[in-house]
Formats: sequence, C-alpha cells, structure tokens
Amino acid sequence: MNITMHPIAHIHCQRNQAIDDNWGSENFEIILADHIPEEALIGIEEFSHLEIIYFFHLVDEKDIVFSGRPRGNPNYPETGIFAQRKKDRPNRLGLTTVELLEHKGRVLKVRNLDAIDGTAVLDIKPVMREFQPVTEIRQPAWASELMQNYWK
Amino acid sequence: MNITMHPIAHIHCQRNQAIDDNWGSENFEIILADHIPEEALIGIEEFSHLEIIYFFHLVDEKDIVFSGRPRGNPNYPETGIFAQRKKDRPNRLGLTTVELLEHKGRVLKVRNLDAIDGTAVLDIKPVMREFQPVTEIRQPAWASELMQNYWK
Repeated sequence: MNITMHPIAHIHCQRNQAIDDNWGSENFEIILADHIPEEALIGIEEFSHLEIIYFFHLVDEKDIVFSGRPRGNPNYPETGIFAQRKKDRPNRLGLTTVELLEHKGRVLKVRNLDAIDGTAVLDIKPVMREFQPVTEIRQPAWASELMQNYWK
Repeated sequence: MNITMHPIAHIHCQRNQAIDDNWGSENFEIILADHIPEEALIGIEEFSHLEIIYFFHLVDEKDIVFSGRPRGNPNYPETGIFAQRKKDRPNRLGLTTVELLEHKGRVLKVRNLDAIDGTAVLDIKPVMREFQPVTEIRQPAWASELMQNYWK
C-alpha cells in the first residue's frame, strides 16, 4: 500500500544542517504552500501550541534503520527505531510540539521546532489539553540524558 | 513534490466506524507490518506513552476541506483545518498520544487511541517529557466543549 503526501507548508529558518542539540535558540517561520488557501489557518492564533508533522527530506532512504544505540552512544542500550525519535526512520516523519508566537496571513512564527530550512510540513494540528497524557510520563534514563541540551 | 509512505503497522480493535466520541472505552492492538522487523520495537516498554501517526484511510480525497465549523456545529466559529483536528484534512494524517499497556513481540497493546480497525500506522514515537509544552496550553472554548466526551 502506497500513500502519497504533498507538503502543505515549508519551514524557513537560519539552520540548514541537522545538528543534534540547541534547537531552542531560534524562531521559525512556517509558510503555507501555494496550493493551500489562507483560510486553512483561520483561528489558529486561539491556540498556544501546535503539533507539526514534517518530512526529514535530507535523510536518504538507504540510511533508514530499524534499531541502534540512540545517537550511536555506546553507553546507551540497543533500541528499536520506534522507541527513539532518530530521523533515519521508516517514512522519515518528524513531529514536534511548538509554541505559536504569531499568525499573519499565510505565515506562522513558532518557537521550539527542530527542523531545518526548507523542510516540508505535512500537517499542523492544534494542541488541546485533552490530548495530553493524563498519567505520569515514564522514560528511560538515556532519554532524559540525551535531551539535556536539546532545547538550549 | 510527492512523498510516498508505507504503513509500518496496522491497528486492530472492535470499532470499525469513525464516530466522534467515547474512544476511551476500548484497548487497541498495533501490529507491525510484515516488512518491519521485530527489532524496531526493542525497549519500547521503557516508555509509558507513545505518539501514533496514522492515516485516515476511509476519508475520500474529495472530502478534504480547508476550513469549516468544528463538527459542523453552528455555534462554533468558522475555523481553518489546521486549527482543528478533523479527519477530512490535507494528507489525512491522524496523531494521538496513547498509553502503552503491553509490548509482546510484534504487538503493542495501547489505550486512548482514536482510530478504527484496519487503520495504517505510519510512525510510532516515544513520548519524552522534554517534548511536552513548557508553557501553559491555551485553547478556545469550543475545543474544550467538543472534547468533553471524547475519551469517555
């Protein structure tokens, strides 16, 4: 089964290389693709946060893996690709919750995104409190360590 | 630009129709597709929650809209498709944070999913605390009202 997608927007920012850390220092613009009418964003400024689903366009299909140590760190355990957020994954989908700073016409300005310039966005969803975890989030120690400088 | 995806898993459950509410009453199984090796799930049970990106396979392409009143309710404002989570959206992507109940071989048992039997899963990501919103979530009144019975 093949499922075909088309970018609904693109990301514009200063960063043009995938680097592991320090994604919090910059603002990002999400600009609607030409075939998407501006009405698709009506009322989005009523939400403080958005979920951005995007495509890791620089990942070559042959680099996709099914498991590995997170960030190749020998101190971390062998981990399945669906138990980590590494970009070299089947379907190459990225997903991040961002803070919406401004909505102006066809452009969203956001913070705390971890995608590079030119990235294709496949969907934007408003964050609702009712979709947040209601039970406590549990995660392995390596995940907490790996994320230490991610948003700095 | 065309982006082609392949299901990495499928959802098995009792529900086979898209209904608006009461998604919390059932458990769901996510079963890996044949071409995905079991190693892709190693260590996933270390996480309490997962993000499931899936494909609304019953939505016809011609039903996709760019705006509308949420659930067609005349009391709700005209809202862009990216300011609501309605299924009839460009690229037909669904996204939900679920609670992981059990991992056994190629099967995940989860709770609080809002997808029907046979749904194709495109990605599974572990929820990490560091990817949660750090500022308070703000949303319009219609969203809170609409979600009242969603998980019941």
